[in-house]
Amino acid sequence: MGKLARKIALVGAGMSKFGRNFPLKRNPDMWVEAWLNAIKTVDNGIEPKDIDACYVGNYSSDLFNHQGHLGPQMANLVGLTPKPASRFEGACASSGIALRQGILGIASGVHDVIAISGVECMNELPTALVTDVLATASDSLFEYPAGATFPGLYATVASAHFHKYGTTSEDLMRVGIKNHENGKENPFAQMQLSIKDLMNKKVQRYQKEGRDVPDWKDEFDFLKSSSNPMIASPLRLFDCSLVTDGAACLFLAAEDVAKKFTDTPIWLTGTGQGSAALSLHDRDSLTSFIATKEASRQAYEMSGLKPADIQIAEVHDCFTIAEILAMEDLGFYEKGKAVQAVKDGESRRDGAKPINTSGGLKSKGHPVGATGTAQAVEIFKQMRGIAERDRQVKFDVERAMTHNLGGSGGTCVVTIYEK
Amino acid sequence: MGKLARKIALVGAGMSKFGRNFPLKRNPDMWVEAWLNAIKTVDNGIEPKDIDACYVGNYSSDLFNHQGHLGPQMANLVGLTPKPASRFEGACASSGIALRQGILGIASGVHDVIAISGVECMNELPTALVTDVLATASDSLFEYPAGATFPGLYATVASAHFHKYGTTSEDLMRVGIKNHENGKENPFAQMQLSIKDLMNKKVQRYQKEGRDVPDWKDEFDFLKSSSNPMIASPLRLFDCSLVTDGAACLFLAAEDVAKKFTDTPIWLTGTGQGSAALSLHDRDSLTSFIATKEASRQAYEMSGLKPADIQIAEVHDCFTIAEILAMEDLGFYEKGKAVQAVKDGESRRDGAKPINTSGGLKSKGHPVGATGTAQAVEIFKQMRGIAERDRQVKFDVERAMTHNLGGSGGTCVVTIYEK
Repeated sequence: MGKLARKIALVGAGMSKFGRNFPLKRNPDMWVEAWLNAIKTVDNGIEPKDIDACYVGNYSSDLFNHQGHLGPQMANLVGLTPKPASRFEGACASSGIALRQGILGIASGVHDVIAISGVECMNELPTALVTDVLATASDSLFEYPAGATFPGLYATVASAHFHKYGTTSEDLMRVGIKNHENGKENPFAQMQLSIKDLMNKKVQRYQKEGRDVPDWKDEFDFLKSSSNPMIASPLRLFDCSLVTDGAACLFLAAEDVAKKFTDTPIWLTGTGQGSAALSLHDRDSLTSFIATKEASRQAYEMSGLKPADIQIAEVHDCFTIAEILAMEDLGFYEKGKAVQAVKDGESRRDGAKPINTSGGLKSKGHPVGATGTAQAVEIFKQMRGIAERDRQVKFDVERAMTHNLGGSGGTCVVTIYEK
Repeated sequence: MGKLARKIALVGAGMSKFGRNFPLKRNPDMWVEAWLNAIKTVDNGIEPKDIDACYVGNYSSDLFNHQGHLGPQMANLVGLTPKPASRFEGACASSGIALRQGILGIASGVHDVIAISGVECMNELPTALVTDVLATASDSLFEYPAGATFPGLYATVASAHFHKYGTTSEDLMRVGIKNHENGKENPFAQMQLSIKDLMNKKVQRYQKEGRDVPDWKDEFDFLKSSSNPMIASPLRLFDCSLVTDGAACLFLAAEDVAKKFTDTPIWLTGTGQGSAALSLHDRDSLTSFIATKEASRQAYEMSGLKPADIQIAEVHDCFTIAEILAMEDLGFYEKGKAVQAVKDGESRRDGAKPINTSGGLKSKGHPVGATGTAQAVEIFKQMRGIAERDRQVKFDVERAMTHNLGGSGGTCVVTIYEK
């Protein structure tokens, strides 16, 4: 693997409100909302004439919205026609791939400025069909006919991790509790309530309705109750990320033109991508994702950084167990040691190594094709010191990472950001 | 638009047999067939360890095969795991985009060798549903609900061209006749019969069955008969390309490593990509595709070549009218003048500027996501002088072009090849 031929800057980043109650919003509406929010963050402004190409990450507008060919459709909404406009797909890592290809596209010398985006509109379909659509990112020859959709596949991973390292359901619950606490502080998040808020809301409703109030001492009691039903053992409802509509947008620029847009660019100094067999039964390990290890190896090598150098990270918590795996596979913690770090509060936003200050896929939401770029939006805000409400970390973030996973680890894209 | 930071070589190219009667073949099977055929063309051999990344063009395995996330699935078939593996989508220009991204990916300095591929498996669905799936590459907000699928959209383009330039149905028939004559000489083509062969076959069948034999003097009589039914006026059955299963594969290498694989690389000296509003009603012109004009402008500028320098081309004849438009929009002929050139035989393989010596989408077939890379396979063979049977052109091809279109011109990718 070689070095980037040019230095690449992130000069703007924004996202649409993530959520699910947008009956009049489809891909174009959310995409434009993200575009406009990204433009607001470019210090000296940016216009369509400044932009050479439009990259769109999307998992399956084909199945979700009966619309393929999103590249030119999105580009045309904001006056980029007839410039190059393409869609990139790698399951839930689709816009992570768009971001990586954007870095390569500028480094190639052909483009100076590229708009990178991600979008997914999942709530046109009933939830049961959403699970079916997502399952097409697993292996349709073997896993899918056997009835394995992603909750089941990640439950398999969790069970193996429980068995090998003694990880428990409570360990997973801590990940969800932390991410909801962060999402509460994110005005763009789908769920802006902590688990405690949700518990208290339920208690109030029960009291109002004159029903027996459950004897919940804390969130764990709530999460162990029937209010948090089992989805695929050992994963319960609050171990799963959300079905979300949303979009995110980034502007990348080559070093020599970046200063036109801002005096404080964020440098993309490392990009890595890895792959694995789609099906879990083809893997050597169920407790580690080879694609994450390979992607992070490349990104560390390119940037010259080590895991300990990364101050904050947005990792792909499609299920709570996935955040644990990421913390280990990215080299932040030894295998089997991440749960203790979570217990010690290290991954909280006031901890030693904050993870998913945005709320993560768990609380911010997971519009699959938009997730990779939305992770970059959070890193951009944290590094600029403009994260909303109370979730800005209390130290100056100079080195950060995003980790975007596709399928049950079939694809992984890792990006490193430096000031 | 800048220059490529590195020189890029095409060092191998191959395709699967294109067709529709492969009941036991799905995407993986066809993809591996193409891969193996491409390997055979690499003079000094190529192995997985030589390859840095795997790029897959595919339009909609989501809707055709209920399988997304093709990148890692294909990479894993041939031992490329855990290397980067991504899917690219731009409707029927999907693998043209993969090819372009491969050029940029190597020019970036990050990769030295990339396997570029395209694949589509369309015949699992009944043909009526295939048309519906393809229509998702048009505008699902306006065109699709109005009942416009691609035959209708291209019929609109043809009608406008007829009206503005006096083009006739016979002019379109000549394109199909020529492409079938070429496809007859291509052992990988779906239809290896000329229109005259098809006519004679029908006459023989009628004679055998004791029915009245139609009084067809030549192919035109046959093509004007009920044997060539109207699909969307003025386009008849033989104006439409085929519903095809197939795959194609290319190996790209940076200049400094290309000599490891071959002493006779073909250089990719120009790449261009353009976009347009998906829907025809949003365009300024119905008789010219702005995406083609923009893509070819970029590719000519990058290579320093002019239209007259291009000796042969594979253009995107999804419908016969599209070949006419391409010949004009690529600058080979002035607007309205291409039909005379076809009439004069200039685009035949023994003409001044052979077009679609492979048989084109019309006769070779059109597995949509594979088409962009399959066009490059034909150019590779013609430039190497290894085109099968009687279709090798009789002069040394030093400069060639591929033109890959998505939707009704929403995307276009143009690539220039030089020896």
